[in-house]
Amino acid sequence: MYIEDIGESGLIERISNLVGVKNRDIVVSIGDDAAVVRTSSDYYTLFTTDFLIEGVHFDLSTISAYQLGRKSMLVNISDIAAMSGMPTYALVSLGIKPKTKVEFIEELYKGMLDISKEYDFAIVGGDTVTSPHSLSVNICMIGKVEPNFLRKRSDAKIGDKILVTGELGASAAGLFLLNSKIKMDDILVKSHFEPVPRLKEARVSAECGAHAIEDISDGLASEIFHICDASGVGAFIYHDSLPIAKRVRDVAEVAGKSAEDFALYGGEDYEIVLTVAPERVEELINRVQSETGTIVSLVGEIVDEEKGIFILTKDGIKKSITKGYDHFEKGVL
Amino acid sequence: MYIEDIGESGLIERISNLVGVKNRDIVVSIGDDAAVVRTSSDYYTLFTTDFLIEGVHFDLSTISAYQLGRKSMLVNISDIAAMSGMPTYALVSLGIKPKTKVEFIEELYKGMLDISKEYDFAIVGGDTVTSPHSLSVNICMIGKVEPNFLRKRSDAKIGDKILVTGELGASAAGLFLLNSKIKMDDILVKSHFEPVPRLKEARVSAECGAHAIEDISDGLASEIFHICDASGVGAFIYHDSLPIAKRVRDVAEVAGKSAEDFALYGGEDYEIVLTVAPERVEELINRVQSETGTIVSLVGEIVDEEKGIFILTKDGIKKSITKGYDHFEKGVL
Repeated sequence: MYIEDIGESGLIERISNLVGVKNRDIVVSIGDDAAVVRTSSDYYTLFTTDFLIEGVHFDLSTISAYQLGRKSMLVNISDIAAMSGMPTYALVSLGIKPKTKVEFIEELYKGMLDISKEYDFAIVGGDTVTSPHSLSVNICMIGKVEPNFLRKRSDAKIGDKILVTGELGASAAGLFLLNSKIKMDDILVKSHFEPVPRLKEARVSAECGAHAIEDISDGLASEIFHICDASGVGAFIYHDSLPIAKRVRDVAEVAGKSAEDFALYGGEDYEIVLTVAPERVEELINRVQSETGTIVSLVGEIVDEEKGIFILTKDGIKKSITKGYDHFEKGVL
Repeated sequence: MYIEDIGESGLIERISNLVGVKNRDIVVSIGDDAAVVRTSSDYYTLFTTDFLIEGVHFDLSTISAYQLGRKSMLVNISDIAAMSGMPTYALVSLGIKPKTKVEFIEELYKGMLDISKEYDFAIVGGDTVTSPHSLSVNICMIGKVEPNFLRKRSDAKIGDKILVTGELGASAAGLFLLNSKIKMDDILVKSHFEPVPRLKEARVSAECGAHAIEDISDGLASEIFHICDASGVGAFIYHDSLPIAKRVRDVAEVAGKSAEDFALYGGEDYEIVLTVAPERVEELINRVQSETGTIVSLVGEIVDEEKGIFILTKDGIKKSITKGYDHFEKGVL
């Protein structure tokens, strides 16, 4: 049996089953955005890692070394945000191709370092090796969170409303523009290269009683599946409430695609999706907006598991939802 | 300027200079076997990472998935041992080639998991992605050490004796046999595939007052350079005291090489080298042997920096020593 037959989620499930063992200091193991362990009485320690490979996750003809350095850190910070934590340290593993210029690696590091200053964490180590075919960047990020602020994907409750920060689909639209080489909207291309992790938004949401929090790395649909699976619930997504910028709709039209599909199935928006009890929705939306300037939209509700996971349109039509991007499934490789 | 012009050590130096910033919780940053940070009052937390790439660090025609899983963990544990710490958690990043069998990845994980049970740590997360050309395995390992047991490579003192555990050159001899396809000695091949990290030996050495401790991943010469550079000292290595097994000498003879060169410049022995005040040498050797069964040999002394780094033969001849394996230098790539 090949990995493409079971997909990334199938592989992770098998690995989780193999690993299985827990000790009492492990609060969250494989299967959330970050692992959580007890290290001191004041804080849990968070661990997350993201592996970016040339030709799969980035293309050096379109992204600069500096931008790649920034992005490789930002995607990890987004995982820390999803636990409503703060980044503290990072380790950088680089697989470097022969005939790489020193200046290229220095630019990559400058991007990483600028992010470490902006988000107040330190790069403390790593490994540099030769990689014959592709530049490979693996970041391991360590973070911390006070126990009462930790938010897991298994925390969603039936009756919760589903909210998302910012707007969706911008990164997917930017990637479409890049690939199609249509010169149309630099802001979208920038949002593909420079995601903004929602650290503070997640923290304020946690303060306002958010239950489950996830960062949207593989499209909203995929994250909703994760939350439902981990929490044992179902979900309805309000098709016509998805926050989509006009510029994304314009690109979708040119692309002959649905803007909602960009939002649901396009990866790398790095917004957060969260669930919260109905009576706290208004407070949460207002506080996040006033404290961070980021809009928050109500896009769905958590329902009984047996009701499934569906999209509801304004005409009351229920559409089934697919799981979204899978790195390993056939046709994706 | 290309990376092969400055080598791995030159690259790490440039990266260290770029990173530079320290905060008061960072005890050891880039440049030792592991990073050390203050997280609780009882323990420092250790972070290390090792990146293994197919075709560079391993060859799937000679190593099994299970062995690779074990080895990928063992090399990281060795870095934790070099700080005289204990492993606690690991994150596993895998770049997986298309058409990889699920069973292969499961075997890889079984190797990792068996090591996690033997050494009492937990795999808590990771990332799995597609890698078009080479299987890539990046492990990030977390460990802990009581502050009074931490040993750094910058801790060597003039007058210290230099000791090594076990025997040297076995992994290099095993690699030679593998590459030459000579069927000669399975024990050497096994020692190349299954290094035994010297966790307990390092800990007992620290209890006996060892100053600097390093694991020998790139040959003894390279580690001596690291210690001298970090501690601002020189070193004399006793050529005729290097502990080399008869089976390694036999292979060296067949290979037409010096067995001492296998010991000095061959990588991946994963023994430890340490320095200790002369008056504690005997106690250290005896205690490590009685508590772990591992022999410890006196192989040199730490001298003034201006005396340099040399090998002394029994005839009193001083030979200069080269830095050892560099992953990036010309001819190595």
